[in-house]
Amino acid sequence: MTDLSAPPFASRHIGPSAAEQQRMLQTVGFESVSDLVAVAVPEAIRIKDRLDLPPAASEAEAIAELRALAGRNQVLTSMIGLGYHDTVTPAVIRRNLLENPGWYTAYTPYQPEISQGRLEALLNFQTVVSDLTALPVAGASLLDEATAAAEAMTLARRAGKVKSPVFVVDADALPQTKAVLATRAEPLGITLVESDLTGDLPECFGVLVQYPGASGRLRDFRAVAERAHEAGALVVAAADLLALTLVAAPGELGADIAVGSSQRFGVPFGFGGPHAAYMSVREGLQRQMPGRLVGVSVDADGAPAYRLALQTREQHIRREKATSNICTAQVLLAVIAGMYAVYHGPDGLRRIARRVHRHAVTLAEGLREGGVEVVHTDFFDTVLARVPGRAAAVVAAAAERGVNLWQADADHVSVACDEKTGAADLVKVWAAFGVERTAAALGEAGDALPAGLLRESDFLTHPVFNTHRNETSMLRYLRRLQDKDIALDRSMIPLGSCTMKLNATTEMEPITWPEFAGVHPYAPEAQAVGYGELIRTLEDWLAEVTGYDRVSIQPNAGSQGEFAGLLAIRAYHRANGDTERDVCLIPSSAHGTNAASAVMAGMRVVVVACDDDGNVDLADLDAKIDKHRDRLAAIMVTYPSTHGVYEEAITEVCAKVHDAGGQVYVDGANLNALVGLAKPGEFGADVSHLNLHKTFCIPHGGGGPGVGPVAVRAHLAPYLPGHPLRDGSPVGPVSAAPYGSAGILPISWAYIRMMGGDGLTAATEQAILSANYLARRLAPHYPVLYTGRGGLVAHECIVDLRQITKETGVTVDDVAKRLIDYGFHAPTMSFPVAGTLMIEPTESEDLAELDRFADAMIAIREEIAKVASGAYDKTDNPLRNAPHTAEALTADDWTHPYTRSEAGYPVASLREGKYWVPVRRIDQAYGDRNLVCSCPPLEAYED
Amino acid sequence: MTDLSAPPFASRHIGPSAAEQQRMLQTVGFESVSDLVAVAVPEAIRIKDRLDLPPAASEAEAIAELRALAGRNQVLTSMIGLGYHDTVTPAVIRRNLLENPGWYTAYTPYQPEISQGRLEALLNFQTVVSDLTALPVAGASLLDEATAAAEAMTLARRAGKVKSPVFVVDADALPQTKAVLATRAEPLGITLVESDLTGDLPECFGVLVQYPGASGRLRDFRAVAERAHEAGALVVAAADLLALTLVAAPGELGADIAVGSSQRFGVPFGFGGPHAAYMSVREGLQRQMPGRLVGVSVDADGAPAYRLALQTREQHIRREKATSNICTAQVLLAVIAGMYAVYHGPDGLRRIARRVHRHAVTLAEGLREGGVEVVHTDFFDTVLARVPGRAAAVVAAAAERGVNLWQADADHVSVACDEKTGAADLVKVWAAFGVERTAAALGEAGDALPAGLLRESDFLTHPVFNTHRNETSMLRYLRRLQDKDIALDRSMIPLGSCTMKLNATTEMEPITWPEFAGVHPYAPEAQAVGYGELIRTLEDWLAEVTGYDRVSIQPNAGSQGEFAGLLAIRAYHRANGDTERDVCLIPSSAHGTNAASAVMAGMRVVVVACDDDGNVDLADLDAKIDKHRDRLAAIMVTYPSTHGVYEEAITEVCAKVHDAGGQVYVDGANLNALVGLAKPGEFGADVSHLNLHKTFCIPHGGGGPGVGPVAVRAHLAPYLPGHPLRDGSPVGPVSAAPYGSAGILPISWAYIRMMGGDGLTAATEQAILSANYLARRLAPHYPVLYTGRGGLVAHECIVDLRQITKETGVTVDDVAKRLIDYGFHAPTMSFPVAGTLMIEPTESEDLAELDRFADAMIAIREEIAKVASGAYDKTDNPLRNAPHTAEALTADDWTHPYTRSEAGYPVASLREGKYWVPVRRIDQAYGDRNLVCSCPPLEAYED
Repeated sequence: MTDLSAPPFASRHIGPSAAEQQRMLQTVGFESVSDLVAVAVPEAIRIKDRLDLPPAASEAEAIAELRALAGRNQVLTSMIGLGYHDTVTPAVIRRNLLENPGWYTAYTPYQPEISQGRLEALLNFQTVVSDLTALPVAGASLLDEATAAAEAMTLARRAGKVKSPVFVVDADALPQTKAVLATRAEPLGITLVESDLTGDLPECFGVLVQYPGASGRLRDFRAVAERAHEAGALVVAAADLLALTLVAAPGELGADIAVGSSQRFGVPFGFGGPHAAYMSVREGLQRQMPGRLVGVSVDADGAPAYRLALQTREQHIRREKATSNICTAQVLLAVIAGMYAVYHGPDGLRRIARRVHRHAVTLAEGLREGGVEVVHTDFFDTVLARVPGRAAAVVAAAAERGVNLWQADADHVSVACDEKTGAADLVKVWAAFGVERTAAALGEAGDALPAGLLRESDFLTHPVFNTHRNETSMLRYLRRLQDKDIALDRSMIPLGSCTMKLNATTEMEPITWPEFAGVHPYAPEAQAVGYGELIRTLEDWLAEVTGYDRVSIQPNAGSQGEFAGLLAIRAYHRANGDTERDVCLIPSSAHGTNAASAVMAGMRVVVVACDDDGNVDLADLDAKIDKHRDRLAAIMVTYPSTHGVYEEAITEVCAKVHDAGGQVYVDGANLNALVGLAKPGEFGADVSHLNLHKTFCIPHGGGGPGVGPVAVRAHLAPYLPGHPLRDGSPVGPVSAAPYGSAGILPISWAYIRMMGGDGLTAATEQAILSANYLARRLAPHYPVLYTGRGGLVAHECIVDLRQITKETGVTVDDVAKRLIDYGFHAPTMSFPVAGTLMIEPTESEDLAELDRFADAMIAIREEIAKVASGAYDKTDNPLRNAPHTAEALTADDWTHPYTRSEAGYPVASLREGKYWVPVRRIDQAYGDRNLVCSCPPLEAYED
Repeated sequence: MTDLSAPPFASRHIGPSAAEQQRMLQTVGFESVSDLVAVAVPEAIRIKDRLDLPPAASEAEAIAELRALAGRNQVLTSMIGLGYHDTVTPAVIRRNLLENPGWYTAYTPYQPEISQGRLEALLNFQTVVSDLTALPVAGASLLDEATAAAEAMTLARRAGKVKSPVFVVDADALPQTKAVLATRAEPLGITLVESDLTGDLPECFGVLVQYPGASGRLRDFRAVAERAHEAGALVVAAADLLALTLVAAPGELGADIAVGSSQRFGVPFGFGGPHAAYMSVREGLQRQMPGRLVGVSVDADGAPAYRLALQTREQHIRREKATSNICTAQVLLAVIAGMYAVYHGPDGLRRIARRVHRHAVTLAEGLREGGVEVVHTDFFDTVLARVPGRAAAVVAAAAERGVNLWQADADHVSVACDEKTGAADLVKVWAAFGVERTAAALGEAGDALPAGLLRESDFLTHPVFNTHRNETSMLRYLRRLQDKDIALDRSMIPLGSCTMKLNATTEMEPITWPEFAGVHPYAPEAQAVGYGELIRTLEDWLAEVTGYDRVSIQPNAGSQGEFAGLLAIRAYHRANGDTERDVCLIPSSAHGTNAASAVMAGMRVVVVACDDDGNVDLADLDAKIDKHRDRLAAIMVTYPSTHGVYEEAITEVCAKVHDAGGQVYVDGANLNALVGLAKPGEFGADVSHLNLHKTFCIPHGGGGPGVGPVAVRAHLAPYLPGHPLRDGSPVGPVSAAPYGSAGILPISWAYIRMMGGDGLTAATEQAILSANYLARRLAPHYPVLYTGRGGLVAHECIVDLRQITKETGVTVDDVAKRLIDYGFHAPTMSFPVAGTLMIEPTESEDLAELDRFADAMIAIREEIAKVASGAYDKTDNPLRNAPHTAEALTADDWTHPYTRSEAGYPVASLREGKYWVPVRRIDQAYGDRNLVCSCPPLEAYED
């Protein structure tokens, strides 16, 4: 009888129907998908068995299982602090931003014209950070406070003039910050010296001050900064943004760099992440900042327009000379934090901060009156109590009352107040200390903020922070920004190597459930049983998919995963006594991050050449291995290659490196071309990182969060990252939280659970078919640059415009911007080869959308032909002038030699619902010459 | 010390800040809001005390309380059936439609040009209904299956030729349908005769067949239809849409009218609603259909465009001659049901239906094999088992296993299978019957569908139902439609009498929680304790707000509330022996629904004149009372009047009617001008209905759901609507479900809970201030038609264009359509006075938005002046040609005497983010002449 079961989730995830798949196969010239795969994917790496994963669950079943897991988490009131504080996400922001695919499926704003909404939102974030820290330039977010501190350390080293390898760390810094600094310092030869910062500083290139300290203590670090500056060292302040609404800003106290977390600006705990960290710097350091920076420039009409500034620092990380491997930011979370400030405004933030502080003061008063010693007299939100020998008992008593406190040591308990803290919480805390008090009026007693440290400067005076005080206005502001952008909810985003595929609603829904969102990362494990199970299962599934033995989901970005993987290799060699092995081979086609990570892991990068087909040049590989045999630590290769080709020789490459005593690192960026067909852990690699936001459906969020688990074979498993507050490991943590961005792991869990092994495999097969289909459709019009066996590509293809540019002057940039007029986000531009476009359709786009894109590319090719033939003017043509705004097209004067309708409606389907780009082409150079990285005054927008 | 508490929710709900309020007061000429209110609101009706409601809760507190209430509901697997079946709402639809303000805050699509998205979605719904029922014309939804059946009954009566007052009802009809038919039949003099439809039919004007029956029995009613038609009677089939994918359609069996519920097409139980009912009719009856009907017409360029067809049937219900009072539809729910069909397509729906059927067959087999008698041999999804004396025990045993069954009587249990039913459920049901079976493979045994009744005709062949099979495509389709429309997430919707204000996210979030969404309306009360408490509390709060003694939330639309209120009056008079009292006085300014409701309640409508100020003409009132004194049943007045004025004489009006033995019905449509300031129940009225979707923040959903509770003084309380499956009452139910649209009551609960009494009062005051502010700003440009004391209006104002039209030819229509070019939804057009616009800003719009609207109106007035002066052509001007599409403005030929930028960007602020209307002005008459009410073929869209 007919199969009556509901179509599997895989059929909702995979775009083309069976009939469409057949049509596509005909175009590509194969009878079946397995025929195609048999030719495209080298036999040597193919797996023989199906993936050993549970059979696919339906969406309803997966949700039920996730609800059961969520139910095994316990959400207590967490007053643990240590960089994570409870907060209220305004519902209007949760629903219309965090839960809105218009925001969360957007890509990194490399195409600024179609990203003005999220760029404005990021500029808000930068303004919040810059204003509150009183440092003029803030970036568009970093991964977490601990890695931000590490980035600040290396920034201080390269920007400073002192030769000393010493970096001084505040003894009162957050434990995770200390641990990540240690992980990052050692391979670079930096010596960390912990200090209470009261006496003289050792010779050093930088100092990190925690402000307020982990213990809650609030300290005026002006004198420390002066001493540091006198000695030529830079000062980093790790500061709490909410506290800064009441106390003097780091920039006012002498800090050169400020870092911290914006989590408590409306972003839930999520068991540790994702949250947006921040960094801001004083004038003169901005060109040294890691990560992304949004700046203001002008468009072709001279109107203000936003875009990523100083992009060379990031997209084109300078391989061997790299100083940071940061690629992903935490855009979605930074946008939320910025919107939290838009929603509350400066007065609202101050009021929240004052309430938090008054609760802390009241708590301390109650403790003192109850005979409990309070250690610090100056604090913002955290009260450290001395209870000799009783700390564990107090913490346990509080937990019984539903409140998590922090046991600093056997004799000390710290209690952090937050936005949600109320009188009832204080009563419970007092009771846990044995202090009987039944009410907690916020008394009039003195603040615990030192008089000399009160904030006097204004902040957030820009209108955007003083306008949207009612929900209606806030809602419309969010909608208006969203409408400026192209995200996956409008059209395909064919980004090579970035795998922009469906982020299914069922995958997304659980992350805002309170049972996942509300758990503090340092809550007792017993309160996170559901998380524990989810994480273990996900790690096991990822191990099965990749053929490795162990996976750690701690790295909260691909870059961190790379770093963790290389650290494991390094530790392994050292454990074997191979302390000299420090050479990392990297093919010239690799993504810049690889080299940067190698440098961070203390390795020397040696580049291996590629042949004309984009494959590793085996002869050069042999030569390099020979040359560095004794010092060979590893090779890092991307597979399929960044050229979108399955290299036939991959097993040979692995064997050669192994024979020389090296380890093989396979970059998992292109895993979407392998899942279910081949396993790096089985075809020769020792370690990989994965990108859950590429292959495993975590949305790109407009440029983050990403998650970059590291997967290793058994011999490297002992060297996976540890965490001071969880298990130990010979290798320290690479992320602030023990489980990284745990809060979004349900997304990948749900994806694997609903696809099952066969669904995952089918997705890979379709991704390969779709890429080859597009290659075949485009090949008559644009040369396809690299192909493998049978003239096939893997899951992406590169079309080459170099000859076209030479002949016509039309550049990849022109094509990319013209695609906007057709309603599309451009493919990856000029990576890995300048003058080309790399297209990755993914499995989630159906045939209609693939054809719509191919038709657009072909129509653009015809426009290029008109430039070539002279039918279009060489400079004043629809390509060069793209994108065209509605304003330009409806202008009373039309001076171009082509028509308005040619510009605006080049294909008929656009009449069904056209995306109107809000600005014309943006002048990148202008913005870098005139760097403005916070909200410009409104006058800037006047005509 | 400063108040450190978070700004109350009221400050998020109310648009203007305190400073803005001061500026507005200055414009209106008052020192304070209380000064304004003292002049605007007649002293005689002002309440002296503050509202006695709990103090305002914060959003977080309200959510916590709602979570606690939700936690007191128990969600079992409900196999109760009786018109309500469990269903899977596709997550992509839930998140991007049901939880998306772009859809749920939209208004009824009276302005079709800015409603093309939801009109297309409704056309999908109509196509689903029309295709599945095989009747050519389907409406855009009705309130619930029971009221739809009642509407079908009255339609049959007015359309038929038989004089008999008898309507024959299938004995196997749903109990709630029978009950609502009884409530509706009696006042109209219709005699209901129940019949098993096997023998001869009595003389009758119509017959209702339930298909399949409430007992599950599936019957070929061709013979019944033939007999009925021979006798000149019409045949109504109440049919299950899912069953119709497998069995012959009502239209194929001879039904003239089909009705039913679309709930099981993806709409959760919600403890009874809201769900969209449907009605479709055969050729010839379409102009008699109640409710809304979406049709296809053309725009000014001849392009296909959707709009409400045959609108005269609805917006202008013909007062005394009314035959239906239906106003609201269930648009949001109809859109979901239509999208469910888009998502699954015909094959998917058939597969779901077949799975449901196979489960039912397997269940029956198991029961029979276990020795349990199964009553019917032909059924679709519901199995009726005979268990003499054991029914209660079986139902209890099933409940213990987590499954709700239905005890039809002491000897019978019915079990309904649905989309979610799985093998495990069958095992539990068998166990409850004492049948031991541990597995439930869907066997190959014969179907229980009669061979002669199998469906052979196609359905849903239109491409829209065969395209969006993957989630990405579905997501983009939803986004594309959403983007065509103006809803509250874009700009203010200043609709007089419709109170389009903030629908806060926190109010909306709980309705999709499973604990509220997943409860069957006939689940045992013990499983709905949370609902019970929420409903009682809400009813009590509404009683406090209105000054009445009792409230029933059963009516699921304002029209049903009116009807229920009038039935209470009628029953009260009858109980007092006043059987002759049947005259209902209605002022000429009243909304047409009032008269229609009176007719439905068996009353005669007598119109009372209004004076020049729009107030009730007291002399005429006296005259009418004198004339009808002995037969006076009631007066129905709207307060403040539909003219937006607080009539000074309201207490006098009430007293006069009471003196004559009549009851006073105050229509609560304008309650937003009274809450916290005056209580109808205290200033003289006996009964009111409220509109929770106006005053109490249930979103309009693009034209429903509405909720219309009825509030009464104590003497009318015994006559509130009852329900056969809950409490009895001398008056029957007016809605299918005992608690009407229970599923959305958390919205109003949350609103009141978070506003508190003072917040609600402040909202009313701001609404009055905002209306008067707009009146003052517009008065120099447009005459403001009615004002009360001090030249003030209440919460809305009417601007009069009649003189302008006479002088310039520019009509209200031109102004309304031109407002679209400015990015606004038009105010209410030509109600209550032709040639005017009625503007209600509500309290939720801030000053910037009010000014933006006023500026647009003033700019339009300047454009009108140009027409008057001849600067603009009389016919070819931006007003007459409005709205202007992007396509029109970017056309290569521009033939108009005004410029493109004048047309498209008349004010500079539009350059910040312009709404582009998808069609030009729609030709209403064309569509009515060429009635097309299902999806047109794609060729219709070709150029």
